[in-house]
Amino acid sequence: MGSSSYVPSQLTVNNLEKHGVSDRDGVIIVDHGSRRQESNLMLNEFVKMFRDRTGYPIVEPAHMELAEPSIKDAFNLCVQQGANRVIVSPFFLFPGRHWYQDIPSLTAEAAKEHPGISYIITAPLGLHELMVDIMNDRINHCLSHVAGNANECEACTGTGKCRIYD
Amino acid sequence: MGSSSYVPSQLTVNNLEKHGVSDRDGVIIVDHGSRRQESNLMLNEFVKMFRDRTGYPIVEPAHMELAEPSIKDAFNLCVQQGANRVIVSPFFLFPGRHWYQDIPSLTAEAAKEHPGISYIITAPLGLHELMVDIMNDRINHCLSHVAGNANECEACTGTGKCRIYD
Repeated sequence: MGSSSYVPSQLTVNNLEKHGVSDRDGVIIVDHGSRRQESNLMLNEFVKMFRDRTGYPIVEPAHMELAEPSIKDAFNLCVQQGANRVIVSPFFLFPGRHWYQDIPSLTAEAAKEHPGISYIITAPLGLHELMVDIMNDRINHCLSHVAGNANECEACTGTGKCRIYD
Repeated sequence: MGSSSYVPSQLTVNNLEKHGVSDRDGVIIVDHGSRRQESNLMLNEFVKMFRDRTGYPIVEPAHMELAEPSIKDAFNLCVQQGANRVIVSPFFLFPGRHWYQDIPSLTAEAAKEHPGISYIITAPLGLHELMVDIMNDRINHCLSHVAGNANECEACTGTGKCRIYD
């Protein structure tokens, strides 16, 4: 999952044509889940971004714990929309207990109710070269803001946090 | 921080020239910290990727809690290497208590020991359009693997996890 596994976007597009998500695949994007409703709502926003940018027909959010919808709820929704395969995509940076154990166990439990529907759990996100670009972009945006050349991003808007502390 | 704030990479490069990290900036990449040493070591790997890909001269890892080095340790190391400004970049997906309170508080504490050194804390990473591309790339790679056309990524190697469950 280090830099050697980075797939340039052109290759990604070509592979997608061969092995990508089909109309009969459902994608579940699952985060940990939070007691803060604000954080749970951000997953919905990410799912919307994901749908818009990829064009995949069936994409559902789920929280591993602490909040609804559960993985089971999302699995049911995918099947109701016609999915015959479910791709569970953890919105987690690193592999850890949740990725190794909890998400597979909850997904197996959800799948029991749907014989004939297969599923796969994808890798965590963190060690991808584009993650460097995201962090670099955040740094650049913050420095541009304090230099007076960019608005605060949505995370900081109204908090007054995006500033140089002397 | 939604899709409207996405900065195409060409713009990023241009802005970096104007407002980017200079030789006198130190970057601290801070994650939560884990009792699992394996997870802490992944941050070191990310820091290496970040150094290699950006070319920034001073980049240090730190864990917010549960593991060393601390934010204070990393801040000291940045100053020792000549930084007169420190950019604290949280390796977190969403803004939450750690981003709002804990990291700012720990950074303020660390900065107290270095009068004249300014700092800034950057935004969380999650709602960035490139994050969609990372997740899409993970999905594509997993599906290519189960189709027999790609190796397991590093997260799955040896675990036998990257497969279709029927």
